[in-house]
Amino acid sequence: MKKLFGSPGTLGGLLLRIGQCVFAGGSIWAMASTLKFNNYTAYCYLLVAMGLQILWSLGLACLDLYALKMKRDLQNPLLLSLFVVGDWVTATLSLAAACSSAGVTVLFASDLDFCRQQSLLLCSRFQISVALAFVTWFLAAISYVVMFWLVASV
Amino acid sequence: MKKLFGSPGTLGGLLLRIGQCVFAGGSIWAMASTLKFNNYTAYCYLLVAMGLQILWSLGLACLDLYALKMKRDLQNPLLLSLFVVGDWVTATLSLAAACSSAGVTVLFASDLDFCRQQSLLLCSRFQISVALAFVTWFLAAISYVVMFWLVASV
Repeated sequence: MKKLFGSPGTLGGLLLRIGQCVFAGGSIWAMASTLKFNNYTAYCYLLVAMGLQILWSLGLACLDLYALKMKRDLQNPLLLSLFVVGDWVTATLSLAAACSSAGVTVLFASDLDFCRQQSLLLCSRFQISVALAFVTWFLAAISYVVMFWLVASV
Repeated sequence: MKKLFGSPGTLGGLLLRIGQCVFAGGSIWAMASTLKFNNYTAYCYLLVAMGLQILWSLGLACLDLYALKMKRDLQNPLLLSLFVVGDWVTATLSLAAACSSAGVTVLFASDLDFCRQQSLLLCSRFQISVALAFVTWFLAAISYVVMFWLVASV
């Protein structure tokens, strides 16, 4: 079986998973530190999606760490198929959450001009949170493409 | 090379492309028929993304039709790689557009209660447009997965 950067049970894979956890955590922190974020559905959904991403990535990071320590090979077709489905679901949810929050943030910042009128909204934190969510999606998408490639080339 | 439903140059592929054009066209029609949609960035982006999806899908539908009439095989690695990249870009843009518009529509309909206050907004049309955009994305995602599978299994 091929060995690609980001394959499960490799150092690249572990680094990708840690990156996903760190950026998703940063996105949650930036969002949760704003006032009134829970009044807006899209921002609540962002928190849920990033939380789910952290759970999934943390689980796979532990698995990668175990495989590296015990020198186990995680690349069997059944396990890879599970990783593909999980990565596809979490990456799609992350992109959906990042985009819906981005849509609302752009609406607040430029279309409705809420950010200037209501200084309590802390729009810069919303923007940081959305940017970090996009980075999380990008890293999750790399994991998904690598897994899909490995499954398809079995 | 494998023959999957939705492969380029097959009837399944042609039907998928026609479906993408029809639903993307419907989404544009529903959005363009509302008043003031051009005041909101997310809705303008939805129109651009759906327009791009129509251009791409129409081009590939013509190519599928040509291949079916002339009994040509479109499944060479270079052409498939081009289709994968194009499908990935258009599917991702469609999902991003659908999600950002959905975020704004939910904000209008429930979080800010704009739809009840401003009857000119025609929120039901926004909702129809977003729903059709999600269907377009789903069909584009099927095309992308089929192409990726064909490329990876060469």
